[in-house]
Amino acid sequence: MNVGGKPYRTIWLEPDGRTVGIIDQTRLPHRFETVRLATLDDAAHAIRAMLVRGAPLIGVAAAYGMALALGADPSDAALDEAARTLLATRPTAVNLRWAVEDLRRRLKPLAARERAAAAFARAGALADEDVALNRAMGEHGLALIRAVAARTGGRVNILTHCNAGWLATVDWGTALAPVYCAHEAGVPVHVWVDETRPRNQGAFLTAWELAAAGVPHTVIVDNAGGHLMQRGQVDLCFVGTDRTTATGDVANKIGTYLKALAARDNDVPFYVCLPSPTIDWSLRDGLAIPIETRADHEVSHIAGLTDAGDIARVRLTPDGSPVANPAFDVTPARLVTALVTERGVCAPSAEGLYGLFPERRGAAE
Amino acid sequence: MNVGGKPYRTIWLEPDGRTVGIIDQTRLPHRFETVRLATLDDAAHAIRAMLVRGAPLIGVAAAYGMALALGADPSDAALDEAARTLLATRPTAVNLRWAVEDLRRRLKPLAARERAAAAFARAGALADEDVALNRAMGEHGLALIRAVAARTGGRVNILTHCNAGWLATVDWGTALAPVYCAHEAGVPVHVWVDETRPRNQGAFLTAWELAAAGVPHTVIVDNAGGHLMQRGQVDLCFVGTDRTTATGDVANKIGTYLKALAARDNDVPFYVCLPSPTIDWSLRDGLAIPIETRADHEVSHIAGLTDAGDIARVRLTPDGSPVANPAFDVTPARLVTALVTERGVCAPSAEGLYGLFPERRGAAE
Repeated sequence: MNVGGKPYRTIWLEPDGRTVGIIDQTRLPHRFETVRLATLDDAAHAIRAMLVRGAPLIGVAAAYGMALALGADPSDAALDEAARTLLATRPTAVNLRWAVEDLRRRLKPLAARERAAAAFARAGALADEDVALNRAMGEHGLALIRAVAARTGGRVNILTHCNAGWLATVDWGTALAPVYCAHEAGVPVHVWVDETRPRNQGAFLTAWELAAAGVPHTVIVDNAGGHLMQRGQVDLCFVGTDRTTATGDVANKIGTYLKALAARDNDVPFYVCLPSPTIDWSLRDGLAIPIETRADHEVSHIAGLTDAGDIARVRLTPDGSPVANPAFDVTPARLVTALVTERGVCAPSAEGLYGLFPERRGAAE
Repeated sequence: MNVGGKPYRTIWLEPDGRTVGIIDQTRLPHRFETVRLATLDDAAHAIRAMLVRGAPLIGVAAAYGMALALGADPSDAALDEAARTLLATRPTAVNLRWAVEDLRRRLKPLAARERAAAAFARAGALADEDVALNRAMGEHGLALIRAVAARTGGRVNILTHCNAGWLATVDWGTALAPVYCAHEAGVPVHVWVDETRPRNQGAFLTAWELAAAGVPHTVIVDNAGGHLMQRGQVDLCFVGTDRTTATGDVANKIGTYLKALAARDNDVPFYVCLPSPTIDWSLRDGLAIPIETRADHEVSHIAGLTDAGDIARVRLTPDGSPVANPAFDVTPARLVTALVTERGVCAPSAEGLYGLFPERRGAAE
């Protein structure tokens, strides 16, 4: 996507061929800054501290993290240590585990001197693959938006939660890929952007993305979506997912489940957009997905822009009040209208997923 | 309730007999400050700018506003003008309309020279009545908490949304009255406090109240409640209401509807606590309740305490992103387990309410 007229992905190999560039997403929407990653620790920190976030982007960042580690030390011990370090950064995201294990499997048989180049090449291929998957998902989602536009004849109102836009991926996004495809195709859309407490990825990232791309949108608090659905102001919901079971249960940003309940109560279609690496074929029950608990300060404090133009952090809760911060929740498949994948749209069930991914049927059963 | 060892109500007649004291709730939880209201405009501003908020407290504040107006000018014209001014401050709260019309009806027949004293006396009586209603509601709600404690043998986990504590009333609170009664009676409780964006009345007021009273509690983002219910960490929900229809539909702070959906999906009892002045006997459909839209800056900006100990406002949304701010939503009666009133607990239906308030049956039908 373009930022100020210059095309960007969220992660790229620098011209030196040994370091990796990223957008520091903790500075958005108030500052657009890029950061150079030179070591495994840089990459692990970027994932852990959420300079990069979003399941697909985390996967690619972890792959580049493996490459950076092997550039410094291509031994078996370093390979295992890099995998361990990266797997520990974010426990919920399945793409991260998938990417780390993919690289470990491919690199282990290689001679030490071949590993770094192979790792950088594989990380680059994963980045390109993510872009292609998202673009394909976007086209499948666009058909769903076109169907609503054809029925209502007006602007299509789409609600989304958290950031599953291009910033959450390498490019295009997952839940927002259909929105960008619609906007590009001239289908009029408007996006209700859940601010998505506690980290406000909606207000900070989704709103920034949509504003940069010129897509009409309105930021709302997470509490407002049910009311808007009751009043007929939402035509459909698109959300991403951090991990999806083989049966269609969806772990996504905390609060997704509440929106799915409201969508069901108001007959609003609720679509989950997922590139297939987000599917955990080994899991059949969403409630078995481990839910990451993040730091208290994400709830008790918030950062924003002062009237003077500085970024400042303020405390929201009283000193004497404890907080809790579960980062994800699970939306059961029964509340999902359909899954949008790179291969098409399917029912949120094992049968639906195996229909699109028949090669998985034997593997998982 | 005690604040720093000194007993407070949220509103009181000052010793001079002509001015009214309030707690400035816009300064909590970081500052405890009181303000003196001397004129109708002071009272209207305090309601509009939410120095006082919460349906029951707004009603009493409006009654005192009528008294302050008549203290300055006891004419018929001033009486009507005071009513008009106060009714325009907050369109959703039925208690405000109820209190203003009660005072107008009582004062109109009186001679001008008798009106101010009668208005102050009536406002004081309404304040005392609110305290008595809330205490009665608290005892009825306590029975529901005791029943859970008897079944589980452990601490009772209660989720609440927004602030329906003593700060929302004259004393005791509505949804928190059962909690304070339980705490006083030695029944172990723990409260999950929804922060309640955009104005954060949960994080700012409910958490402050519970901390001051020594009631165990944990602040969570509004997105988290569904997840906690899925994991069995919520035994029951208590919320307040700004307006309830004669059929049991409930208009309360935006986001209440989402929690009611989650409670239903997880078989968690969802109770609404309401003193009877909150019932709008003329309404039978909650979706007919006008929903106040509040200022954009409540969503785009937030105030908190800096590390240096100052209160500062920061911007959360990007400059180019519009926001929307509906302040309430409607929870249909079908999602409410029961209504807790000062006369007892009843089904959320016309039959349930008329069973407790039979004198209303003729009036409303």
